Amino acid sequence: MSKPALISVDWGTTSLRCALVAADGAILARSADGPGINPPPAEGFASTLTTAIAPWRYQHASLPILMSGMIGSRQGWAEVPYLPCPANAAALAEHLHRLDAGDLGDVFIVPGLAMLGTEQPPEVMRGEETQIIGALAKTTHAKGAAAQLFVLPGTHSKWATVTGTEITSFATYMTGDVFAALRHHTILGRLMPDAATSDDAAAFAQGVSAGAADGPPGALLNRLFATRTLGLFERLPTAGLASYLSGLLIGAEIAAATALVKPEVITIIGNAELSQRYRAAADQLGLPTTIAPADCAVRGHCIIARAAGLLKEPS
Amino acid sequence: MSKPALISVDWGTTSLRCALVAADGAILARSADGPGINPPPAEGFASTLTTAIAPWRYQHASLPILMSGMIGSRQGWAEVPYLPCPANAAALAEHLHRLDAGDLGDVFIVPGLAMLGTEQPPEVMRGEETQIIGALAKTTHAKGAAAQLFVLPGTHSKWATVTGTEITSFATYMTGDVFAALRHHTILGRLMPDAATSDDAAAFAQGVSAGAADGPPGALLNRLFATRTLGLFERLPTAGLASYLSGLLIGAEIAAATALVKPEVITIIGNAELSQRYRAAADQLGLPTTIAPADCAVRGHCIIARAAGLLKEPS
Repeated sequence: MSKPALISVDWGTTSLRCALVAADGAILARSADGPGINPPPAEGFASTLTTAIAPWRYQHASLPILMSGMIGSRQGWAEVPYLPCPANAAALAEHLHRLDAGDLGDVFIVPGLAMLGTEQPPEVMRGEETQIIGALAKTTHAKGAAAQLFVLPGTHSKWATVTGTEITSFATYMTGDVFAALRHHTILGRLMPDAATSDDAAAFAQGVSAGAADGPPGALLNRLFATRTLGLFERLPTAGLASYLSGLLIGAEIAAATALVKPEVITIIGNAELSQRYRAAADQLGLPTTIAPADCAVRGHCIIARAAGLLKEPS
Repeated sequence: MSKPALISVDWGTTSLRCALVAADGAILARSADGPGINPPPAEGFASTLTTAIAPWRYQHASLPILMSGMIGSRQGWAEVPYLPCPANAAALAEHLHRLDAGDLGDVFIVPGLAMLGTEQPPEVMRGEETQIIGALAKTTHAKGAAAQLFVLPGTHSKWATVTGTEITSFATYMTGDVFAALRHHTILGRLMPDAATSDDAAAFAQGVSAGAADGPPGALLNRLFATRTLGLFERLPTAGLASYLSGLLIGAEIAAATALVKPEVITIIGNAELSQRYRAAADQLGLPTTIAPADCAVRGHCIIARAAGLLKEPS
């Protein structure tokens, strides 16, 4: 069995995930999910982390700990300045933020990325940069190859363009957050059954078509209303309306994120259910996808730790 | 003083407004605002209306009562079938729905309008058709003149095209409903002060520009996020973020509703505050506006009642 070489900590808004990792990237052990940073854990961040990795105590005495995610935000353990985008693993490694963490030893936070040009509103990410670096390791990126497109779907979906091994730009789409607000706090939810609705693939596909159709940005404010009228006039079953709305938003998101450049392939980084949903929508729009392996964050931590000289090359 | 000739009843989701009207359209008296149809008044619709117009009892014994709005919906007093659009005042008059309302006498509901072609999702309105007919009476519409554009801003804004005196098409934009859901139920509200914020005209204008800029529909899901990042990076004061979001949505709505045909003038029908907000945004986008007089619903009821032969021409 490989020797432990690193503790990988993915600490976001809603959960803490730790893994004990070998120098070759093999995951030797995982912690149970712990509390996210919002609300901040009552016992403090250091104590929460100590508890989470306690089972490996005898193994990690001298192991570096690499963290990424909202733990590096203003509401987290320490606010780590964003690194300007474009950036690659080497740049992230160079700007690791070292914490004074007492007994925990060498604890580092990977900085998030920001695009702060004044011609556009700011864009920021924390945690996704590490997952993208991790996913990149498993994708082919010949020198001089075309830019690759990555999506991390969710509450605030991130779409990132990668050239070579460098994250060159990204954009945030509030798709998941908007879906939940529309479903639960506008007229659109009124016709939807309260119970968790099973997916209606046909309604979802109909939504994708409607959302991805050409039009100006404000057309979305009009298209959303169809979720109500299609239900009112029984053109869609009420049990399918949530799927229609989901398809409408995801279709609009994917079409917008790929409007300027048709990607050769879109790499999807996310949980299985959401990844499949994005893949289905992209398929329908004629966009090829690949689904990234699980544990992109752990892979990213390994790559960044190695670039920082914190890991010995596997022997 | 003119003689009472009609009772005008504008009965929507949230309020009941009655007016005692002369044959020439002069408003002789108004009721205090009564309860809307959602939730339905406990004492029933007939009883609620009887109470609202009781002060005029001695005057209205034989007066026709014309109602419009959600009172004609499935959740209202009686579900009145939608009239297909295009339609004018004569068509609305021809399809008045007569209620069996006992002591109240001749009570009619103006039908709403629907666009039910199968190539697009259904569009519906109830009440706005009457306001547009009322506003039309005060706008010039020379025969053969270009189509006119009307907007009724609100929770679900309606944009209607009128050719001559006929409402030829319309579309619904969920702007107000979406604004409230985003502000109160997504991350965008987190940086906004809780207290009702005074309008920030500069932030509103910046939002209008961002919302009206070219792009695909899904770009809106990305642009919304700027409401957060502009606040985070202190490019906008937090007190201005709600105005920015409002401008973003209204700018997107106006740009989309006028994307195909630049109107000579947009007639705005709504309360003073919202009408001014839409006028400011349209001004900024180079679109001339006129604000309809108050009481468009009452005016519309008079025109439809006259077309139905329920009103004597003013002597």
